[in-house]
Amino acid sequence: MTRTVYLNGNYLPETEARVSIFDRGFLMADGVYEVVSVLDGKLLDFDGHMARLKRSLNELSMKNPLSDEEYLDAHRRLVRDNDITDGLLYLQVTRGNPGDRDFAFPPEDTQPTVVMFTQSKPGLADNAGAAKGIRVVTVEDQRWRRRDIKTVQLLFPSLAKMEAKARGVDDAWLVEDGFVTEGTSNNVYIIKDGKIITRELSSDILHGITRAAVLRYAREAQMAVEERSFTVAEAQAADEAFYTSASGFVTPVVEVDGARLGGGTPGPIATRLREIYLEEARKAAI
Amino acid sequence: MTRTVYLNGNYLPETEARVSIFDRGFLMADGVYEVVSVLDGKLLDFDGHMARLKRSLNELSMKNPLSDEEYLDAHRRLVRDNDITDGLLYLQVTRGNPGDRDFAFPPEDTQPTVVMFTQSKPGLADNAGAAKGIRVVTVEDQRWRRRDIKTVQLLFPSLAKMEAKARGVDDAWLVEDGFVTEGTSNNVYIIKDGKIITRELSSDILHGITRAAVLRYAREAQMAVEERSFTVAEAQAADEAFYTSASGFVTPVVEVDGARLGGGTPGPIATRLREIYLEEARKAAI
Repeated sequence: MTRTVYLNGNYLPETEARVSIFDRGFLMADGVYEVVSVLDGKLLDFDGHMARLKRSLNELSMKNPLSDEEYLDAHRRLVRDNDITDGLLYLQVTRGNPGDRDFAFPPEDTQPTVVMFTQSKPGLADNAGAAKGIRVVTVEDQRWRRRDIKTVQLLFPSLAKMEAKARGVDDAWLVEDGFVTEGTSNNVYIIKDGKIITRELSSDILHGITRAAVLRYAREAQMAVEERSFTVAEAQAADEAFYTSASGFVTPVVEVDGARLGGGTPGPIATRLREIYLEEARKAAI
Repeated sequence: MTRTVYLNGNYLPETEARVSIFDRGFLMADGVYEVVSVLDGKLLDFDGHMARLKRSLNELSMKNPLSDEEYLDAHRRLVRDNDITDGLLYLQVTRGNPGDRDFAFPPEDTQPTVVMFTQSKPGLADNAGAAKGIRVVTVEDQRWRRRDIKTVQLLFPSLAKMEAKARGVDDAWLVEDGFVTEGTSNNVYIIKDGKIITRELSSDILHGITRAAVLRYAREAQMAVEERSFTVAEAQAADEAFYTSASGFVTPVVEVDGARLGGGTPGPIATRLREIYLEEARKAAI
């Protein structure tokens, strides 16, 4: 089936959706994005993703071309037209097409480019990684310093993902100055003596929408949470580990650089947090 | 006049050159580029740019879709068809369009996307900046760590250029750990007591094609060259400063963070190097 995608107000077959070669997104990675999960045809954490989109745009002095209602309408239409039960809704906004290339921002009246498309992922909430846990290796974090802005500068995460693949594991954890920052496209956590430890928010990491929700649920469930940086050695000595992301929800991590955590199977706290998150997120889905 | 541009083997009016929204260049900044200067209708340092293009592609495990001869033919046709006397030839290669979005590289047989276009810049070798010298401010270097690969991840250089503009000057010099790395899109140099000082090559800076040529000419002219990092304070206390780039050749810098160098006018060594570079580059142009 050919997907219907959204491009600047139009709904098009995916094979016909094209942007100018002069689009700032194509020439300069001058764009931001969001990914919203869909379960049972409903959108998860939509408001959180909209809030972060606006923050990303604002940090880059970029206009927000649509209202939340317009984004929501487009999301729902794409979910419906593409018959998505479980999957993802990808949204990207760039600074648009000024008709030529220049490092300087284009004139104020340049229309941003807005792209949205779906990805069908049947059984998204029941993937093998969640059941068995995933294995990771660590690599040096070589990204730019404003990781709190969700830009399309994803070349390094892509390279790190490929390195993980080449080393026979599922993902890479990025390390800077000896401390873990995050995964290639997710926030990461370790659990030691019942305490959930995850890096504090700063421009060093993405401010995960799923992270915020999971930490809230953990605290509501009286779990101990400590927001601070941790080392690779701490991770390897942890009782459990997991990552959070819009598409992975809460996914257990059972191996870090060859060191098995908790006997190599998902731990009870990560497993419980996944259940809580999915239950609450489904309840609040729109 | 509507430009003719090159896209994947086709010569198209600029308004019709579009790439898929699924192109890795648009979604993930997974692409590299080169800019070749044109003077009197001829290409400057073409071989150097081709060598660097191949290095960039190789570092990213990306295929080189065309031979040097094919790039040269396309460059020459675009220069001719668009009637370029002085200007630039921009070339971008991305990992292509896999038809969907995934952090993992697409299948081996995915065709890279190749884009080329011209920019007409009459009097490119006689611009005001070169005659008067330019003024710069310093900003913290927040780019990713592989600046030796010429990727399209240009959001930070664009932001830094806008900050320079907002602060009333021409460009920004990027500073990391107290030392200047480079300009937003150029290599930078200071001159003290007759010695030309510029940062040594590493993954911290772009390996400028113009940089290599200018240092070679400087040494041939018996000028002293020292390749090492320098601080902002050293730059402010320098006798002269300049930058090099494919489009700016050798351009004098006369002010760094408000401190005027050499009385605020282009110094003799920078001026002489510009003359030498332009003379030699024109001679070798093809």
